Order: sequence, then structure tokens, then C-alpha cells
Amino acid sequence: MSVEDGRFSVARILALDVVDVRFPTSRELDGSDAMNPDPDYSAAYAVLRTDSGPDGYGLVFTIGRGNDVQVAAVGALAHLVVGREVPADAAALAALSADLVGDSQLRWLGPEKGVMHMAIGAVVNAAWDLAARRAGLPLWRFLAGMTAEEIVGLVDFRYLTDALTPDEALAILRAAEPGRAARTAALLTAGYPGYASSPGWIGYPDEKMVLLVKQAMAAGFDMIKLKVGLNLEDDLRRLERVRDNVGSEVRVAVDANQRWDVPVAVTWINAMARYQPYWVEEPTSPDDVLGHAAIARAVAPIAVAAGEHVHNRVMFKQLLQAGGISVLQLDATRVGGVTENVAILLLAAKFGVPVCPHAGGVGLCEMVQHLAMFDYVAVTGSQAGRTIEWVDHLHEHFVDPAVTQGGRYVAPTAPGFSTRMWPESVRRYRFPDGPEWTTAQSPPPGP
Amino acid sequence: MSVEDGRFSVARILALDVVDVRFPTSRELDGSDAMNPDPDYSAAYAVLRTDSGPDGYGLVFTIGRGNDVQVAAVGALAHLVVGREVPADAAALAALSADLVGDSQLRWLGPEKGVMHMAIGAVVNAAWDLAARRAGLPLWRFLAGMTAEEIVGLVDFRYLTDALTPDEALAILRAAEPGRAARTAALLTAGYPGYASSPGWIGYPDEKMVLLVKQAMAAGFDMIKLKVGLNLEDDLRRLERVRDNVGSEVRVAVDANQRWDVPVAVTWINAMARYQPYWVEEPTSPDDVLGHAAIARAVAPIAVAAGEHVHNRVMFKQLLQAGGISVLQLDATRVGGVTENVAILLLAAKFGVPVCPHAGGVGLCEMVQHLAMFDYVAVTGSQAGRTIEWVDHLHEHFVDPAVTQGGRYVAPTAPGFSTRMWPESVRRYRFPDGPEWTTAQSPPPGP
Repeated sequence: MSVEDGRFSVARILALDVVDVRFPTSRELDGSDAMNPDPDYSAAYAVLRTDSGPDGYGLVFTIGRGNDVQVAAVGALAHLVVGREVPADAAALAALSADLVGDSQLRWLGPEKGVMHMAIGAVVNAAWDLAARRAGLPLWRFLAGMTAEEIVGLVDFRYLTDALTPDEALAILRAAEPGRAARTAALLTAGYPGYASSPGWIGYPDEKMVLLVKQAMAAGFDMIKLKVGLNLEDDLRRLERVRDNVGSEVRVAVDANQRWDVPVAVTWINAMARYQPYWVEEPTSPDDVLGHAAIARAVAPIAVAAGEHVHNRVMFKQLLQAGGISVLQLDATRVGGVTENVAILLLAAKFGVPVCPHAGGVGLCEMVQHLAMFDYVAVTGSQAGRTIEWVDHLHEHFVDPAVTQGGRYVAPTAPGFSTRMWPESVRRYRFPDGPEWTTAQSPPPGP
Repeated sequence: MSVEDGRFSVARILALDVVDVRFPTSRELDGSDAMNPDPDYSAAYAVLRTDSGPDGYGLVFTIGRGNDVQVAAVGALAHLVVGREVPADAAALAALSADLVGDSQLRWLGPEKGVMHMAIGAVVNAAWDLAARRAGLPLWRFLAGMTAEEIVGLVDFRYLTDALTPDEALAILRAAEPGRAARTAALLTAGYPGYASSPGWIGYPDEKMVLLVKQAMAAGFDMIKLKVGLNLEDDLRRLERVRDNVGSEVRVAVDANQRWDVPVAVTWINAMARYQPYWVEEPTSPDDVLGHAAIARAVAPIAVAAGEHVHNRVMFKQLLQAGGISVLQLDATRVGGVTENVAILLLAAKFGVPVCPHAGGVGLCEMVQHLAMFDYVAVTGSQAGRTIEWVDHLHEHFVDPAVTQGGRYVAPTAPGFSTRMWPESVRRYRFPDGPEWTTAQSPPPGP
């Protein structure tokens, strides 16, 4: 399939493979919160196979049942990428993203939200991984090496221009150009701040939580997060236990995982105020822009954070316009991939709201570190008020795992988006026929 | 499987069947608009098979590619309904809906939006069809025969209480109780207003449009709708042609199908103002609550309408709170089925905004007529400013097709939700192996 084009051979995408991979995390209550009592962290794992050179890898993170639906959705995009020239630059990556988002028949299934949009994100991310691998650069450096004009060219400004115009985006990027090299060097030396949310799962008993909080402090983290929202008395007791053990210097965020209505959120958050929560995450429905704004006004100066379930750039635009969030938690696999996340980073920069990405799950730490580092090098030039969630599990399944040292993410240096899983992990955890599922003690979840 | 429970046998759901049905409508440009140039109107058709008595039928309307993803999503819900007792009353229907929406692992794929939520809608609608069939009543009468308390019990008030409380909903329903019988009789005699959008597809040449508009007027419709948004000159010429032929008495709505950014929408709509558009539908992204509100303020007194892509009750709540819409176009298969649409009707009633359902597609006219008639009998008691979209195609595939006479929907009298398709239609149009696809001249669209 390789075609000679003068000196260069034009590589093409041969196939889009997708695998249902599930980890039985519910057995230990890892990942439990007020809305998700027993997740099995999973991935619809997508591979763009090429006719020569490296392949590209992407995934959608899900929490178990329905991962097969997500796999079907990724597969439905094959006709838009198979046979295509391997994208190598900003223009080709923007065109690929536009073709996926713009398929008029598939668009009906969103538009730009839910299963179909997350599938687009996986394929777009695989294409970015592919391009960065072929450029021999980690994604954050590949992206931060583009010109301001190229980066603006990635953004789909449809529905954004009342909040951010191409000229405004260009001005933001140009202002950050002078310090790019110095900030790249700083990241390679000192990394990027992280915070620990492994200690705070709602299914953990107090003693386990306190032990894990102490371990996180000892490892160098200066911020942790607790899940809240099931029972106010429990939340107050857990916060008190943590404050008793870490003092008032450490930042303690709380995360309600969409548990509350607006009036309940206001009451509950204000009841927790004496423990100085650093931010309150997902106080209500991720769709409720006006609700977030009402809560933010009523609980100030406590910050409101959201993003892991915010389904596209139009929703982020409004959360920023309405003052609904003062911390923006972008997600690597909820929206349409790297391309849409560039738009979201530019929106956040326009409104002066720090981005603190959502991570954990499967491969999210691996991916979002690249986006935060790109933001630092080429968009905002700042780490102030910024930190990346860190959850220390499932990294062993990735060829280029995310790493923290002294509470900071170590800047990745391997080419690509850190999205490739070990073939042996994919084989073992494939659902329902991989050996981890066929030989498991507990029955696999339906269907 | 039937179990004797005293005198009565308890019927159970044996299976959830789902079929990929596609109609090759793109061959004639039926259904073409500014964002959807060549739809193949399709359905993920769901059947709740029972061990005795009637089965229940539901569907998700899609426009072609991706219908297989929708089929997979419906199938992923089987474990929540198979083996369940056939729901017979409001409490059982509310419980079934809550179980589907509340599955914590599947919820991650939305939450409450996109492919997974539409799948829930199909199954919930099939359950309502089942219950109404067994009660021997058309759905609108089955639903309007419930007590105010039973109807309030259907509503999931999570995320709604800042706009609508259970007590407020109860008060709305109680106020409408006195006239229920008289309004039921009025519907059976005189039907419910409809409007025609078949004439206005954007792919039709002017002559065909004018001919179809005249036919609609002759058939008794006093309102039509035109697709707009591709080219302003074309839109102005088409509006002028229509006004030249129907005069100023007939209401002419226009539909931009999400084509514009906020500033463009304002300019474009005001340019069309001289032709007195009755409403402007989907001027921008269905997610853009604040954008709709800005447009509505800038184009008043022209009404802004939206709903066919508004993905759940939380979004409708905000569109109403922000003044973003003055016409609410609920959809039968975008949200979580009849149950969530009851919540949406109550929200609209609270804010005094008329509901004019989106229809057309596959089976949408059949379904939404029941919801509009329920609204008239038991919620608002009014037909003022209310009308149901009418598109005259694909009805022949339904056992109990929607019917209009003199521009009004005839109240359905057959038991159920009018969702059952003829088995022969399902067989012929099954994708990709039904004879309409295997013997078609043009190649079938990719999966």
C-alpha cells in the first residue's frame, strides 16, 4: 500500500482495530464514589494500524458495562480513517478531526456528546499519537512546537466566536511564544505539579484513608482529594480526620460526583466550609451551567471545579461565560480528543481560569500530562493554581506510564501520547474472553 | 415462565429484541437540511417480548450511519429488563425508568445524553407501549388517566428542584383535573393542530417547494416550515416565493438546524424578519443555553424554538430559566422516553412556554401526538400556540399510523404508543441484509 511520492513514501492507515479491555477494579472498591459504587475501569482501546512505521493508539475510558457499546462506536468511524494518509502536521490533524465530527449521519447520535463523541476522541487521539510518534516527539513537545497559526488552525470555532475569536486565540498564543524554550527546559528538569486522589475513595474505611493520605504526603504531594456527597456526617468526620492528620497547610479538595441539586449543594458545601475545601468538584449535574453558576455565587470563596463529564467545548464555553467554574478539569477521553482540548485550553486562557485536568481511570494520567504541559509551554505560560490529578493504579499496563516524583509529574520524553498499552495486558484483560475474566472468581459483569 | 399469583398470572418480560431498520430516504433528498444533506431515516427498533399477551415496541430515530451503534446500546440494557415483571402502573414504570437511568456503569457513557440515553428512551417507550396496550388504552389516555400524584411520581426531580418542586408539579396537575373529561372528548372529536414541514426541505427546488406548500394549504394546514441557513440569499428568495403564494396570514416557521454562531444567527434572523417568521428553530448549538438566550433577546419578538437535539430535562430546565426558548420542541426518542418527557412537559407548564413537538423522522409523529394530547388533557389544558410537526412519509410502516385531517392530528384510539412497525417492513428494510438494501441500485451506506 505504500506509495512512492518523490523521495518520500506516503504512509497510509490500513485499519482501525478496537478492543474491549476491562480491569476488575470493583473487587477492591478502587474508584468508588457517591455515584459510582463499583466501577470496573475499562477502555475501548483503538489502534490505527499503518502500512509502514509506527501505529497510533487511543482509548475511551469507561467504567465497565457499556464498554462494548463504546467499542461499536469506535468501529463505526473506520470508513472515515481507513485508507487515509497518515496525518503528519496540524492541517492534516485538523482535517481528520473535522471529518469525524462532521459526518452528518453520525452527528445525529450526539451531536458532539456521549458515546459517539467519545469514540471520535479516541480515534483523534490515536491520530495525534501516530503523528507525534512519527515526529519522534512526546505529544506535548510536538504540539508546543507548532506555530501559533497552526495551533489556531486546529480549533473548530463553530459555536465559540461569541466568546473566543480566532484573532483572540492567536494573540494568546503569540504572547506565550517568547518563553517556550525556557519553559520546556523547566518541565524537563522539574516536572509539573500533581495532587493525589487515590486516598479518598468513598468505599475506603477511615483508617485506610488516613494511612493513604499520610503516604501521599510522605511521597511529596501537597494536595489531596476526598470523595463526598453520600452522607454529610460521614463527610464532616472524614474531613476532620484528614485535617487532624495533615494540618491546615495541605490543600484538600472534595468531589461530590454530581450528587446534589443546587439548593442541597449550597447547604452541604457551606457545612464543610470550616475544613477549608480547596475546591468542590462536580457539585451537581455536569449539564447544569446555570446551576454551577448559582452554586459558585453561593459558596464563594470556595472554588467550584468541573469538567470530567463536560461533554464538549460549547459546554465549557458557557461554564466560563457564566462564572460556573473557577477550576476547569479537562478530560482526555470525554471530548473530541486533543484537537478539541486545544480549543478548551484556549477558552480557559481567555477567561483566566486555571486548567487542572481530570485523571485516574485508565490511561488518563498518561494523556492529560501532555495537555497540561502544552498549556504551560505554549498557551498560558503559568503553573499557578494548576495541578494534575494523580491516581496510582493501572499504569503498569502502559508502555510509557505516567510517573510522579516528589508529588510532581515527570515530563514524558518517549514519542507519542503515552497511550500504547502492553499487548500482553490487552490480551489478558480482554472482555469477556481474556484469561483475567474467564478464570476470575467473581462472575463477570453483564452483558 | 408465567407465575400464578392468586387469581392473576404475573406476566414477565422474556427478551429485549432490537433490529437495525433503515429507509433509503437519501435517494430523494427527503429530510435534507443545512446540517443533514443526505439522511437515510432509520430506527433502532426495540421489542420487549413477554411470556403472555401483547409485546411492547419502541425505537430510536437516527439518520443512517451509526444506527448499528444505537442497536448495540439498546442491547446493553437487556440485563435491566429481561425477567422483570411487565410494568402495569405508574410506580412500576417509574421504577423501570429509574433502574435504566441509574445503572452506574452505563451512566458513565452519558450521563443522560447521546447514544446511551436514547437507547434508554427506546426501552422506556417500549415499556410504556406495553403497559398501555395491556390497559387497552392509547398512551395519551392511559397517561392522562393517572392521578396527579401518580404523574408526579414519574418525575425524576434530581437536578430540577431549583426550577420545579414536586409540590409545584402537583399544583399544576391538580389545576388541570376539572376539565380532563371534556378535553378528552374534544380531542376525540376535533383532534389537535398540526403544521407541515414536508414542503421545506433544503434540497428541494423552488418549484417543488411552492407546489408542496400549496398542497399543504389545500389539505388544511395553516402553518408550514422552511429549512434555512445554508445561504442567506437563497433563504430570502425562498421565503419571498412562499409569501407570494400563501400571503401573510399563514404562519411560516424557519429552521436553521444549528447552523449559526450567535452573532451570525442574530444578523441572519433579523434579515429574514421582513417575511415574519413565526419562529426560528435551532439557530445554534442545542447545547448553547446562553447562546439561545442571547439570540432570543436580540431577535425578539421573533420566537426561538429548540428541542429535537436537547438531550435531557436539565438542558430544557436551563433553556426555560434563561429565556432561551419561547417554543419547546420535545422529541420522543432523544431523551429518556415518556417518563422524562412528562418532566419536560411539567417544566414547560411551570414556565408558561408552549410545547410544539418535533416530529417527522421514523415514528416521531406517531409518538409525540400522544404526549401533546396528554399535555392538553392533564397538564396545561390548552392548545393555544401549540401545534405538532407533520411530515407525511414512512407512516405506512406503522400498524397504527398517525393521521391528519384538515391540518389536524386525529386522536389515536388503538391501544399503546403507536410504535409497532409492520413485521414485513422490519424484514424488508433490515440493514444490511433486508431485500431493500441487498437489491438496491445505489450502494448501501457504510456501517
